[in-house]
Amino acid sequence: MTDFDKSFAPIGVFDSGVGGLTVLKAIREALPRENIIYLGDTARLPYGTKSPTSIARYATQATAKLLEYDIKMLVVACNTASAVALGTLHAQMAPVPVIGVVEPGALAAVAARPGGSHLVLATEATVRLGAYGKAISSRDPEARVRELSCELLVALAEEGWTRGDIADSIVRRYLDEAEEDAFKPDSIILGCTHFPLLREVIKTAVGDDVEVVDSAGTTAAFVRQTLEIKNGLALGSESGSLQLLATDGITRFARVGGQFLGAPLTAEDIHLVDL
Amino acid sequence: MTDFDKSFAPIGVFDSGVGGLTVLKAIREALPRENIIYLGDTARLPYGTKSPTSIARYATQATAKLLEYDIKMLVVACNTASAVALGTLHAQMAPVPVIGVVEPGALAAVAARPGGSHLVLATEATVRLGAYGKAISSRDPEARVRELSCELLVALAEEGWTRGDIADSIVRRYLDEAEEDAFKPDSIILGCTHFPLLREVIKTAVGDDVEVVDSAGTTAAFVRQTLEIKNGLALGSESGSLQLLATDGITRFARVGGQFLGAPLTAEDIHLVDL
Repeated sequence: MTDFDKSFAPIGVFDSGVGGLTVLKAIREALPRENIIYLGDTARLPYGTKSPTSIARYATQATAKLLEYDIKMLVVACNTASAVALGTLHAQMAPVPVIGVVEPGALAAVAARPGGSHLVLATEATVRLGAYGKAISSRDPEARVRELSCELLVALAEEGWTRGDIADSIVRRYLDEAEEDAFKPDSIILGCTHFPLLREVIKTAVGDDVEVVDSAGTTAAFVRQTLEIKNGLALGSESGSLQLLATDGITRFARVGGQFLGAPLTAEDIHLVDL
Repeated sequence: MTDFDKSFAPIGVFDSGVGGLTVLKAIREALPRENIIYLGDTARLPYGTKSPTSIARYATQATAKLLEYDIKMLVVACNTASAVALGTLHAQMAPVPVIGVVEPGALAAVAARPGGSHLVLATEATVRLGAYGKAISSRDPEARVRELSCELLVALAEEGWTRGDIADSIVRRYLDEAEEDAFKPDSIILGCTHFPLLREVIKTAVGDDVEVVDSAGTTAAFVRQTLEIKNGLALGSESGSLQLLATDGITRFARVGGQFLGAPLTAEDIHLVDL
């Protein structure tokens, strides 16, 4: 396959469910001509509370499905899968490039607050592996990092309760827990793709001095840069196509996913696949 | 196998995760001599947001695993699996008896408030199928039933935030939603095995006039009655054994499960199995 041929191939975006649609949205904004195939493994979500072995197996199966579509790049839009399985997926996909969301998120935080203290809000599995801590420390040895598991924020985002007293109280409780021994973050990293929906609540709770960082924009910039290097950018002036695949519950995918994509979805927009 | 032989065989208890340990606890209290094998399908939890097809497939696989242990009865300690797959599991297990938690819960509510109004708090999948509504109406045609999906209560119970302002606010918000058009429940049915952990908060929110019903005690009574009819009760004076199986994340199972069982668990208490 020549570079020119590759430019027509789709980008594969994989997530455990609908959260990765926040990343998909950023990629489409940055690269409107690209054809994109999104796969949400809704049959086995959430990944955040599962073991590394199971997460790696699920991610490998999802990637194998996306390979059937001759994708020119894989974006792992799930923090947990990025933290657990990126090495495995690199090997599976080679020489097709694989981009996770942890590295871009870490890079954005370090760029925003060099030598600073970073609080990572994430799922249990991401926290257990310390993936953000490693990614930040390797770029900025002066940085301090604390990672906190916040499973209720996932449920809040899925329920659509992203404003109001309840969201405020839950966010404040997690922040209080993180700041127990006088740890004062300069940046908050939204280390789960569900959490951008709670950005306003978090921003209000921490105040203007704290940078709130998510991976979506930086990941989209990485995707663009990598395609440019590989001469793989889509050509022409037409808008790219979008295909949405899910492993279960397409009605729920449409309802909850619309909130993450920022655009209404119907069940007819989503194609059910088996892994 | 004679009836006498059967009495030594274990009771199989199946749940999507740790919530069913509330039912297990009630069964052990009612029948302390019984050997019990509990299987939590933690690799694929939660069932509550999955499609009926997936839930039925998962439940069938879990049941096949428990059949390897020559169980004399299957208790489906998961409301969602009971609502979706009980018919399928009856066929799979015959002639071994199968008991779900929806029928006992409905029966308890009808007995407590005949001709009354019942509010069922449950998962999305249980509500979608209207399983409690059907079970209640078939016993009490005068009864009114409203079913409400409360996914945040699952997250609250798993996080262990079962008391305090946040739990209060979330419970009140769901109750307000249920009572929007002047629906006033006489009973609240805890239609998910996670919710007994929030019983106190719910009880405080609704006041003493409303009966709070859960399936655990009634299910245990059903189990006892069925074993008596089949001459399958364990004999002798020794305490029964307990074996815990999980399909993923035994460390998490021990930590979260201890709250549901009301007794501490360690990872060594749980055996990892593949379905």
